[in-house]
Amino acid sequence: MGITLEQAQAAVLAAHKKALEMGVKMNIAVVDAGANLVAFARMDDAWLGSLDISIKKAKTARFFDMPTGAIGGLSQPGGPLYHIEHSNGGLITFPGGIPLKDASGKVIGAIGVSGSTVEDDHAVAEAGVGAVSSH
Amino acid sequence: MGITLEQAQAAVLAAHKKALEMGVKMNIAVVDAGANLVAFARMDDAWLGSLDISIKKAKTARFFDMPTGAIGGLSQPGGPLYHIEHSNGGLITFPGGIPLKDASGKVIGAIGVSGSTVEDDHAVAEAGVGAVSSH
Amino acid sequence: MGITLEQAQAAVLAAHKKALEMGVKMNIAVVDAGANLVAFARMDDAWLGSLDISIKKAKTARFFDMPTGAIGGLSQPGGPLYHIEHSNGGLITFPGGIPLKDASGKVIGAIGVSGSTVEDDHAVAEAGVGAVSSH
Amino acid sequence: MGITLEQAQAAVLAAHKKALEMGVKMNIAVVDAGANLVAFARMDDAWLGSLDISIKKAKTARFFDMPTGAIGGLSQPGGPLYHIEHSNGGLITFPGGIPLKDASGKVIGAIGVSGSTVEDDHAVAEAGVGAVSSH
Repeated sequence: MGITLEQAQAAVLAAHKKALEMGVKMNIAVVDAGANLVAFARMDDAWLGSLDISIKKAKTARFFDMPTGAIGGLSQPGGPLYHIEHSNGGLITFPGGIPLKDASGKVIGAIGVSGSTVEDDHAVAEAGVGAVSSH
Repeated sequence: MGITLEQAQAAVLAAHKKALEMGVKMNIAVVDAGANLVAFARMDDAWLGSLDISIKKAKTARFFDMPTGAIGGLSQPGGPLYHIEHSNGGLITFPGGIPLKDASGKVIGAIGVSGSTVEDDHAVAEAGVGAVSSH
Repeated sequence: MGITLEQAQAAVLAAHKKALEMGVKMNIAVVDAGANLVAFARMDDAWLGSLDISIKKAKTARFFDMPTGAIGGLSQPGGPLYHIEHSNGGLITFPGGIPLKDASGKVIGAIGVSGSTVEDDHAVAEAGVGAVSSH
Repeated sequence: MGITLEQAQAAVLAAHKKALEMGVKMNIAVVDAGANLVAFARMDDAWLGSLDISIKKAKTARFFDMPTGAIGGLSQPGGPLYHIEHSNGGLITFPGGIPLKDASGKVIGAIGVSGSTVEDDHAVAEAGVGAVSSH
């Protein structure tokens, strides 16, 4: 549904390469348009707790077709989506999850990255996005 | 912990290649010695319900350091481990999950495959095992 | 509620000693009268999947105040308690869980053991029972 | 995997002793490098709700190799890891969980303590840490 395994693996590979360049240890997950896992890689000695977070970031980005950080801006106390994290078996709404689109701009899946600061996570996820959009 | 990402990806690649040769569409999961996911690939148009099964097979094989089918032989009605599947958040006890060992015979993780008959699943998992033991 | 930590640790210690004598690697759990964990020990290199099973055996034995294997005899296909394992977040109904009683015969908790054959698991659990009843 | 049962029990014993000195009633949990329970003790009349919290604190400390309170500083409203607690089946991010390291500084597990104020919980956990690092 949406992304192919070949595209998903290209995204994981590009994100992995970027993480190596940055010297960070990441969990990298790609889900399809149905928000189901297609490809995953956990780098050696990456935080164990980031495994689940990377998958939840990818799912969250596809659930709402926007970067996870954008949802986090709305889920704060007093915000319009306060505590949306309680839905769907647990969402992660800080940066590191980004939708993946085909050439026409249609969302075909999402990538989620976790293992460092949210800025690093987002940067590595962007590398994965680049591999799909240029495919 | 145990298996490296490089070894895990070699196992996924070998299993994927075997599945293509057999003309079957598989979900392929590799976990480490802690039974946590290290690498995963879902082939295009593989059964969606097999995603969770492949991961549970890999976990089950590591949980008890034996092929999943061996546990299934003991968990039948009247058997000594009847309904062991209700533990650990859900086990899968039919064939397709196999422990992965290093050169010294120590278990370093496990592979789980799901998407076809249990015979096919097991054959594809065996291909993954071969890639690690010969690494 | 019921068993004290001192009693629970005596049960774990006795079961651990028995397991060492038998040359088996066990997970040993003791719950109180409220079916909540009081003491636990996982022996080095014991099956990882037996952690959850040992706790579920202890809980199951206290939930119904009988050895887990006795429930398994009733939960078979066609039996009066068929699929009772689906309740309480997952029961384990094969041997290895036994209620713990005070001198007056009142149930004060239960012990659950997992890591070998169900016969071995039960024997090690019995050693734990002996430590409490003679206390 | 990482910590041995002997080390884990030494940590529980030291934490227990410290709690007795302080006159507090604690739940004390030790997990291994795979974030799986190795040893546990609940003191008589300790808060029942603290059982799960102590285990989640130990897991959380190992999931990210840092004291739980450090994560809590980042997961506040407006913080970079807001609501990270929704991952991994539920995290606890206030003080009381601390990684356990071997002589070389490698993380081999973690201890989690719950039953009093977070300051008390952390102090008791520190006593457990001391027992392992001096072992």
